[in-house]
Amino acid sequence: MSNELKVTGFRFAATAAGLKKSGKPDMALIVSAVPAVAAGVFTTNKVVAAPVLLSQPRIAAGRCQAILVNAGNANACTGAPGLADARQCGDLAAIALGIAPELVAVSSTGVIGHRLDVSKFVTAVPRLVAALDDDQIEAVAAAIMTTDAFPKMVAAYGCAGGRDYTLLAVAKGAGMIHPNMATMLAFVVTDADLSPEFADQVLRRAVDRSFNRITVDRDTSTNDMVLLLANGQAQTPCIVGDSEAGEEFGRLLDEILLDLAKMIVRDGEGATKLVRILVRGALSDADARLAAMSVATSSLVKTALFGEDANWGRIIAAVGYSGAEVNPDLVDIFAGDVMLVQSGLGTGPELEAVATDVMRQPEFTLTVDLHLGSGTSDYYTSDLTYDYIKINADYRS
Amino acid sequence: MSNELKVTGFRFAATAAGLKKSGKPDMALIVSAVPAVAAGVFTTNKVVAAPVLLSQPRIAAGRCQAILVNAGNANACTGAPGLADARQCGDLAAIALGIAPELVAVSSTGVIGHRLDVSKFVTAVPRLVAALDDDQIEAVAAAIMTTDAFPKMVAAYGCAGGRDYTLLAVAKGAGMIHPNMATMLAFVVTDADLSPEFADQVLRRAVDRSFNRITVDRDTSTNDMVLLLANGQAQTPCIVGDSEAGEEFGRLLDEILLDLAKMIVRDGEGATKLVRILVRGALSDADARLAAMSVATSSLVKTALFGEDANWGRIIAAVGYSGAEVNPDLVDIFAGDVMLVQSGLGTGPELEAVATDVMRQPEFTLTVDLHLGSGTSDYYTSDLTYDYIKINADYRS
Repeated sequence: MSNELKVTGFRFAATAAGLKKSGKPDMALIVSAVPAVAAGVFTTNKVVAAPVLLSQPRIAAGRCQAILVNAGNANACTGAPGLADARQCGDLAAIALGIAPELVAVSSTGVIGHRLDVSKFVTAVPRLVAALDDDQIEAVAAAIMTTDAFPKMVAAYGCAGGRDYTLLAVAKGAGMIHPNMATMLAFVVTDADLSPEFADQVLRRAVDRSFNRITVDRDTSTNDMVLLLANGQAQTPCIVGDSEAGEEFGRLLDEILLDLAKMIVRDGEGATKLVRILVRGALSDADARLAAMSVATSSLVKTALFGEDANWGRIIAAVGYSGAEVNPDLVDIFAGDVMLVQSGLGTGPELEAVATDVMRQPEFTLTVDLHLGSGTSDYYTSDLTYDYIKINADYRS
Repeated sequence: MSNELKVTGFRFAATAAGLKKSGKPDMALIVSAVPAVAAGVFTTNKVVAAPVLLSQPRIAAGRCQAILVNAGNANACTGAPGLADARQCGDLAAIALGIAPELVAVSSTGVIGHRLDVSKFVTAVPRLVAALDDDQIEAVAAAIMTTDAFPKMVAAYGCAGGRDYTLLAVAKGAGMIHPNMATMLAFVVTDADLSPEFADQVLRRAVDRSFNRITVDRDTSTNDMVLLLANGQAQTPCIVGDSEAGEEFGRLLDEILLDLAKMIVRDGEGATKLVRILVRGALSDADARLAAMSVATSSLVKTALFGEDANWGRIIAAVGYSGAEVNPDLVDIFAGDVMLVQSGLGTGPELEAVATDVMRQPEFTLTVDLHLGSGTSDYYTSDLTYDYIKINADYRS
């Protein structure tokens, strides 16, 4: 285990608690040596899972010391008993760690509508606490996987006031493409010292620039949660907004969350391609985002990506119904650097053949230039494949 | 050919003009003996195909005598030359029929971005005119098919002022489910006499109750078009709104367009099921519609339908992110008559097993009761299958 994957004052543990039918690791614990400054972004779905109901006010209070997370059961649509279950699981961790229950956040992902088997937590939580170590974050990344094909983890390093600090982040999520209700969880821990206001602001911005570029707002799951814990153990000065140190931290956080977001798309259920949809020349950034999202979420575009078919008609039509201002006669479309459409017209079979070669690559960019203004936005998407159907038709069986 | 499939004063023809690679019939003509009262509903996509650009103002003028329609090429994203092509094709029909060009509507469906081969119209249009006959509407229904598995046609009969009249309608469209830009065309002809205002109003209402219950507004193709032609040759009195005859006509039109809409869903690309999503108890009809549309278009719900999996968590989550007001603790969900969720909680494995039996049927209703008010709406959807991917990944190859 490399030394890089540690962050001062944080310890990690994972175990197989028996919640996943496969018997794979399915429960994890992240613990800070001291109560950390905490910020969170939670699902906007009106159907909110119990762990979100429990953790959101705790994080809003600004401090958190431990995150207890499980896969295999979302504890969603379980009513008041489900909320009591979530509370009880959090209490088990608080007791085993000797900290206040309010300092524990709980998080769950998995099947909806089934009660959590709390007895499995009774057995597993003390085992987790006993196993806590500073080099175990990779085990956490693996334990929170559901349909993920690979664990998602990333690190970044900064310096503030002459003190080096570290960011470590893990995420899960693979229902991407048009993610619908596939739960996205991400946990970021850092030994930098952040002001609570800055932590909240910088996390929201980074989520908007990363996970919200692969996710349509309306398509949030009942359990989505992104948490940032900053324990200050690197002895940095307190980092605030509108400062050089704040800018550096923000840039690092943007980077690692975008890296995780791209990993999630790359691991899209059944996906074989990671495609960036870049829209420029829109009347506004908001218009560019509408257009990029529309192309990125079109089932017809996504099946064409799978078919490696430079079917630009589907792209331009998705722009047309996006709600963004568009003049079809001005639209240019590129696959990589290859111009596929110029001023709304196809550039012909030769260039289309070259574009098809671009689309045979596992990663590439489709650019739409609306030539109306300077608005720009991008979205990451993947292709829609047979395996997406297979995974989602068979998920519970 | 049955006598029922005629309507006084209308003649029909279809031919293979060579626009479809398969060599199947791909061009059709519908002609009224006299200029008919005309109404139309067109795509709301900002990228509008040439035939829509040409036909929309002609229909808006209130009169139409002929509809020239082709499959195999959408004549979309073809710029000014494409519009000239559409005009020239319409002119060919006008000349061959000896009528004013403004009385001809043109309509196209097929691949986007390729110029129409007008020379094929030069040859085929006179052949169509020569072949016109009153019993050929089934040939029209077949010629306008693209990925459709079967032709879509329906008839209805009414009486006004002691005079019997007939409605005949054909439609194409199979990219349904979440139809994106799969073009939907429908043509309704009647020998009833309608006031132009009534024709417009009754068509918009019927489209809203049928095709717009299977189609998300934003997901319109570049070529969508529904036309109603009423030539009055049944010698009925002129039917207007707010009248008994108007109500009967409206009911018949609602019925036949809903029948066609359901055929389109049943023929969804790769679809094996026709599922009605009924939402009741919403705060308003608009909220009910939001919720029904969200469930009906969720890729995860649709793959679960394919998997015959009573995965109600996906249904309730889609309601949760729909934007409709919802209190999760009040939600009931039924598959057919089987209660799957009561007050936000699953009713258990026994009922879920019975619900799964319901979902094994080719057609059934999923009902969501929000218990907040009296708002009701429904949507028709199909399942998302391997064949959807196959059809759309390979469409142009």
